[in-house]
Amino acid sequence: MRMYDLITEKKNGRELTGEEIKWFVRGVTEGEIPDAQTAALLMAICLRGMNEREASDLTEAMLRSGEVADLSAIPGKKADKHSTGGVGDSTTPVVVAAVAACGLKVAKMSGRALGHTGGTVDKFESLPGFRSDLSPREFADVVNRVGAAVIAQTGTLCPADKKLYALRDQTGTVDNVALIASSIMSKKLASGADVIMLDVKYGSGAFIKDPEEALELARLMVRIGERAGRSVGALVTSMDAPLGRAVGNLLEMYEASDILHGNADPEKLLVCRTLAADLLFLAGMGTKEACGERIDRAIASGQAFEKLCEMIRAQGGDPAMLRDPGRRIYAPFRREVRAPEDCPGYLVRMDTERIGICAGILGEARKNPEDKVDHTAGLLIRKKTGDRVSPGDVLCELHTSDPSLLDEAERLYRSALAFGGRPARRLPILFASVGPNGSVSRF
Amino acid sequence: MRMYDLITEKKNGRELTGEEIKWFVRGVTEGEIPDAQTAALLMAICLRGMNEREASDLTEAMLRSGEVADLSAIPGKKADKHSTGGVGDSTTPVVVAAVAACGLKVAKMSGRALGHTGGTVDKFESLPGFRSDLSPREFADVVNRVGAAVIAQTGTLCPADKKLYALRDQTGTVDNVALIASSIMSKKLASGADVIMLDVKYGSGAFIKDPEEALELARLMVRIGERAGRSVGALVTSMDAPLGRAVGNLLEMYEASDILHGNADPEKLLVCRTLAADLLFLAGMGTKEACGERIDRAIASGQAFEKLCEMIRAQGGDPAMLRDPGRRIYAPFRREVRAPEDCPGYLVRMDTERIGICAGILGEARKNPEDKVDHTAGLLIRKKTGDRVSPGDVLCELHTSDPSLLDEAERLYRSALAFGGRPARRLPILFASVGPNGSVSRF
Repeated sequence: MRMYDLITEKKNGRELTGEEIKWFVRGVTEGEIPDAQTAALLMAICLRGMNEREASDLTEAMLRSGEVADLSAIPGKKADKHSTGGVGDSTTPVVVAAVAACGLKVAKMSGRALGHTGGTVDKFESLPGFRSDLSPREFADVVNRVGAAVIAQTGTLCPADKKLYALRDQTGTVDNVALIASSIMSKKLASGADVIMLDVKYGSGAFIKDPEEALELARLMVRIGERAGRSVGALVTSMDAPLGRAVGNLLEMYEASDILHGNADPEKLLVCRTLAADLLFLAGMGTKEACGERIDRAIASGQAFEKLCEMIRAQGGDPAMLRDPGRRIYAPFRREVRAPEDCPGYLVRMDTERIGICAGILGEARKNPEDKVDHTAGLLIRKKTGDRVSPGDVLCELHTSDPSLLDEAERLYRSALAFGGRPARRLPILFASVGPNGSVSRF
Repeated sequence: MRMYDLITEKKNGRELTGEEIKWFVRGVTEGEIPDAQTAALLMAICLRGMNEREASDLTEAMLRSGEVADLSAIPGKKADKHSTGGVGDSTTPVVVAAVAACGLKVAKMSGRALGHTGGTVDKFESLPGFRSDLSPREFADVVNRVGAAVIAQTGTLCPADKKLYALRDQTGTVDNVALIASSIMSKKLASGADVIMLDVKYGSGAFIKDPEEALELARLMVRIGERAGRSVGALVTSMDAPLGRAVGNLLEMYEASDILHGNADPEKLLVCRTLAADLLFLAGMGTKEACGERIDRAIASGQAFEKLCEMIRAQGGDPAMLRDPGRRIYAPFRREVRAPEDCPGYLVRMDTERIGICAGILGEARKNPEDKVDHTAGLLIRKKTGDRVSPGDVLCELHTSDPSLLDEAERLYRSALAFGGRPARRLPILFASVGPNGSVSRF
């Protein structure tokens, strides 16, 4: 096989065979294909597309390019969830706790923060002592004993994806549905779960802006997962405003705890509840309605919150700050951002990506992988799109350990907002759900 | 400026500005842009296209990336011609001689053979003593004294094009009209001529198979040249069969000499005459009809042949083999390829690229730039598409200095032919002509 032929085939709009895709991924993994040729193929894929079969073969080839998690030490079905990334998007603590409280085991491998979006692992690690680097044996032990564990993805999963992603990032070839789907699904499938729920975000804070495009990605990922023999579902949800009210590692953990105490932002609760109920449904634990009721009971009874604390303790962490609001710690420097004097009455738009970057500036994100994160940094949102706003109202609260960052963060936060004289139409948080065989239900 | 932004703009189908194109070409020339990013942009250009303004800016930027020939030592208008490459395609000796005999100076820089197509410089160098490496001063002297000179392009013209071409060759991004046009025109414009005729080939022996696509390329090149202030015209001609009857360096020089002696293959004469007459016309030397008659007279009177000999001598070469057919030398090993016993009556198709490769195998082409060429190698074609063929008729004569090559060459030559029971329609050799402002006349 010659890379030149693969490139010209795709350039001319033809389908690549499974053998060709396997050969390409092996060549990339082993460093045998010049970057220029790989980049040309990636661009041709972006402009000509890949069908479901090709995306599925690409996923499979990347999944086999490195280590594959062996979860055979954990009997029964193992669940996992994945979000494509957003701002204030910490549904994992709630979903994992609720699902595990209902008796479905969760064996979750998570990524760290990327760009303006937060990472689940960073959030759990904001609790003192929490270890996300369990060995495979420790991981299986915690899941078997407690019913849930959340660890960081190891670098040995899907090396081909890592190389391809670095090139895509450099060559403007990130935003193709087939490339995104195979990148996400290769890592999810390599993590070994049987039952997987995907939360695909669209809007100003997501890398996909359009809901129909997010739905296309969701369907493709579900079909790829099903072709690999897993039970997979997806929600398509809005990221046109931050999810919930908190952005930041500890602040989001506090919010998760509030939700599990019945003190919830209704949209964030709705997303968490639907993801959790769909996981039970995919695992065959009843009708969608019955699964929803089980999740509600697990939260209302406090069992879900107890499960969260149990898991945190089993991974070496201290849940005291979640259990007792009086023991919560906050960043030493805080500033309220207030509505301007000429504010015409309503908050009509939030540039959510910019709000994510703002939280990053305050210390929540690392610029480089080795940077330390300020876990207390972030922001608490008081007004969201659609809310009535009078001059002087608090729009948000900025939290940081470095007061020199506040001015820039405030400027950026203000630039992310638009005000208007009439209330803006707020889109419902749930757009669509994807079930078996890629079937779609719109909300 | 960031390369990433240029890539995504073109990927999304937007036009690149002149500044962006200049910045890109400078970055490529100076080795500052990673090959992967350049390859991604090239693929995006292939699939999204470039308009005339962009192709013109790209040409200009590549032309300025290196040395530009200074022809100011040659007073008056300087003419040049260029063929996009074919088999048996040696129109240059005839056109240059006829045009110069009519008083229009020719200052031509030529390339060497590429792939299956012959190079003009190789053909002249098959004459003993001929030097194609004249210094700029010698070049100007010969043109001023004789009226014509043909030299090899130096490596210092258009280094950006050289780098881009190497990447295009590797990444399947050769066949885009804007990239082809700017690659050719940057070198032609850097060579400094004021009046340029292009011979754009289509068909089985050309890299463009379709005549309309060749016409699109021709129009774009004419417009690019005009935007740069030159007088440019183009012919679109068929390469569905080799041009003329000879393929090979010396064999084609003999054929050129035959044409100038009135002993011509009618198609090859027609192409040469039209190119030469159009050059005079572009230089303002009369109506198309009057220019055609001047070319006819220059050939019929022998003045054109004398001019060719004069130029060869001025460049150190010996034209004796052209002047006296008795002094022609031929390859020591020759084989006649004869029509098979079951030949149904007509030659209906010639895969001309394969015939070019066949001549290359016999020793006419170099595999590597440092290889020596066997100038006597090549083939003489006896039957062409449309001809009646009886079993045992001679189809062609293979010429080589290495008899071990004959079997492979014969096999390849036979595989390039298709026979049929009815005469095939032979397309006219001239398809279209492109004049001022890209205006098109079809023949």
